[in-house]
Amino acid sequence: MEGNASSPDPRPHVVILGGGFGGLAVARGLADTKARITLIDRRNHHLFQPLLYQVATAGLSAPSIAAPLRQILRGQANVTVLMDEALDVDLAQRRVTLGHGSLDYDALVVATGATHAYFGHDDWERHAPGLKTLDDAFTIRRRVLLAFERAEREDDPAQRRAWLNFVVVGGGATGVELAGTLAEIARHTLPREFRRADPRHANVLLVEAGPRLLPAFAPELSDKAQRQLEKLGVEVRLGTAVTRIDDQGVVLGDLPHAARTVLWAAGVAASSLGRRLGAPLDRAGRVLVEPDLSVPGHPEVFVIGDLASVTQPNGKPVPGVAPAAKQMGRYVAATLKARWQGKPVQPFRYRDDGSLATIGRMAAVAQFGRLKLSGLLAWWVWLIAHIAFLIGFRNRLVVMLDWAWAYWTYQRHARIVTGTDETPTLPRDA
Amino acid sequence: MEGNASSPDPRPHVVILGGGFGGLAVARGLADTKARITLIDRRNHHLFQPLLYQVATAGLSAPSIAAPLRQILRGQANVTVLMDEALDVDLAQRRVTLGHGSLDYDALVVATGATHAYFGHDDWERHAPGLKTLDDAFTIRRRVLLAFERAEREDDPAQRRAWLNFVVVGGGATGVELAGTLAEIARHTLPREFRRADPRHANVLLVEAGPRLLPAFAPELSDKAQRQLEKLGVEVRLGTAVTRIDDQGVVLGDLPHAARTVLWAAGVAASSLGRRLGAPLDRAGRVLVEPDLSVPGHPEVFVIGDLASVTQPNGKPVPGVAPAAKQMGRYVAATLKARWQGKPVQPFRYRDDGSLATIGRMAAVAQFGRLKLSGLLAWWVWLIAHIAFLIGFRNRLVVMLDWAWAYWTYQRHARIVTGTDETPTLPRDA
Repeated sequence: MEGNASSPDPRPHVVILGGGFGGLAVARGLADTKARITLIDRRNHHLFQPLLYQVATAGLSAPSIAAPLRQILRGQANVTVLMDEALDVDLAQRRVTLGHGSLDYDALVVATGATHAYFGHDDWERHAPGLKTLDDAFTIRRRVLLAFERAEREDDPAQRRAWLNFVVVGGGATGVELAGTLAEIARHTLPREFRRADPRHANVLLVEAGPRLLPAFAPELSDKAQRQLEKLGVEVRLGTAVTRIDDQGVVLGDLPHAARTVLWAAGVAASSLGRRLGAPLDRAGRVLVEPDLSVPGHPEVFVIGDLASVTQPNGKPVPGVAPAAKQMGRYVAATLKARWQGKPVQPFRYRDDGSLATIGRMAAVAQFGRLKLSGLLAWWVWLIAHIAFLIGFRNRLVVMLDWAWAYWTYQRHARIVTGTDETPTLPRDA
Repeated sequence: MEGNASSPDPRPHVVILGGGFGGLAVARGLADTKARITLIDRRNHHLFQPLLYQVATAGLSAPSIAAPLRQILRGQANVTVLMDEALDVDLAQRRVTLGHGSLDYDALVVATGATHAYFGHDDWERHAPGLKTLDDAFTIRRRVLLAFERAEREDDPAQRRAWLNFVVVGGGATGVELAGTLAEIARHTLPREFRRADPRHANVLLVEAGPRLLPAFAPELSDKAQRQLEKLGVEVRLGTAVTRIDDQGVVLGDLPHAARTVLWAAGVAASSLGRRLGAPLDRAGRVLVEPDLSVPGHPEVFVIGDLASVTQPNGKPVPGVAPAAKQMGRYVAATLKARWQGKPVQPFRYRDDGSLATIGRMAAVAQFGRLKLSGLLAWWVWLIAHIAFLIGFRNRLVVMLDWAWAYWTYQRHARIVTGTDETPTLPRDA
């Protein structure tokens, strides 16, 4: 492939694995350099993860929170985007093995992120889908909407109840967002549309093993988030371990809870590519990088974003959030530029721009240093921040429109079931 | 189920199979009656078929042209919507067998439409997807967008060419729309985004077995459509039969044509449910109905839309288009009301509101009786008509926005690849 260093091209070849917030920031940060850049992603699009739960809950359509990587980088002539999969890294040869061919690099940035993990219960995934990709979101959307359809069709009261029981496992931001939105759908969006099973009888249970929701926030905000969720109709159970998940529901401790729809927001594990770098990993499988985010012994290889394990001077880990990934990406780009110019490099410093989590209609929590907000004000901050960070004017416009629409009508325009999973594939006609 | 006539409910029970243009028109036409209505569809949404090709070509997102049937009918208290599949009809017992349970009816309307047919070459479907459902549209979108990705990744010139060769089989409205849009994507949307394979080298071949495109239109409009397509860069081959389709391309007569992407717009066959009604069928498998659209010998059973074979007084068949289905639906609703009131019923008369077909940017053909339009003016008529007939204000607004957007920027916002088919499923990470 052209990308190979076998070509006598003198320009340094920077290979970026992953087109998320981190990888994209590296590519953009090197726009004004002589570097040849190859960005590899197995998907053709950059995904705005923070709003993925809204695709899963039918509030937004997929293209509103995703943009083709080529389109984002079309103007940057020194970037080649390849839709492919990174299988392995040969640190000695400075070569990445792809699904199709291989690439030699002068500098490598690994930004392949994290995925949801089931802590040794991989069989749970079938019953409790997690939320990392657009396909995950479609699976959750399908299961949630079909559950109400099944309830409407069901004659047996116990079965009907089981179809109207929803369990969300994990009290982090994603779990809180999913639970709050499910309650809103059941209480406000669907009621007038069913003749037999009243969606208002739906029960949304949020289960968290730890002592409080949103552990990344201050304790008082955890309490506020819980109260806001309960006001929306969500049943919150803290300090409760899920010991079993199957197609009938969950077992909490040793109490079975019948529910035909279980969503997983409990755990993430770093991309398996981290294990290929021969570097020490933390318990979550993240790579323990040097202060300049490089791999020990390989200053030409960087790991950023959710795959990197970085400890701040205050001893706290850098959180696995979009702003951190962006900052790491910009830092690596600046570091490479400094090196090429023979300038010294400072270690990476994470700047905490604050944390936001939305809960539902006019309910959210926000934390900026000492400043803590909750309720309507936090919700507005969340809303404006997320519109502002979306990529593409068209998407900002349509998302604003859809949110205004949902606000006034309580409707969610993307309530379209496509594809199949546990539901049998139906013949083309009838 | 409640729907069963075993309940002593005196109100006539009307069962409608299919929530397309026809079935929906029947339900709405019976809004102000004492009838109990049950609408069955295996999908949860009504689909605006005329714009489906724009979802397939990444111009629109799925929710913009689909709306949940429950939401459309939420205000009509005498309608129960069930997401289920009609498997069989027992005319003697007046009972429909569903995937889950059965329903007794006093009147039955079969409006399950048509699907694409491969004329005894069912193995072609794998290589040449057709376009009838949103899932079909996603498959086509994925194949088209991935073809350009593969070309960019491909080193072998012959293989690269094969990935940039597109064949559309069938010169009806769908085939013309798909071919024209593919040419526009290759020439205007993608060029600046690829570094190796120039999308402008893409070749779009439209193959039609008959002597002209758009046989439903006047011959001079067929010629105009062909010239407009050729101006957009589409290669049109008339009077050419496809004798073979496989993963390497097509064989035209006995000339092999290498193409990794083949789309099928050549033929439709009526829903297999028609065969369950014991009524005479035409060659396309459509039910030959009475002048009042009822099944011979069963005045309580109606067949409408693409599944019905109706001949006009002028000897011409009623075309399988949305306006015809709507007219049949409204007619059946009026007929049932007249019968319940003991009034006489006139036979169904199809009113031709004209035909429209779009070809691409500012190119279309339109025919209203003697009035024939083509080019920009026809394109505007097409545009306004399709916005007007969309369901839902939000969708009209967003579709207008997306079209204006595409017009000015040449961008297509829904260029997001999700799901997998012939491409191997990729592991969750790396």
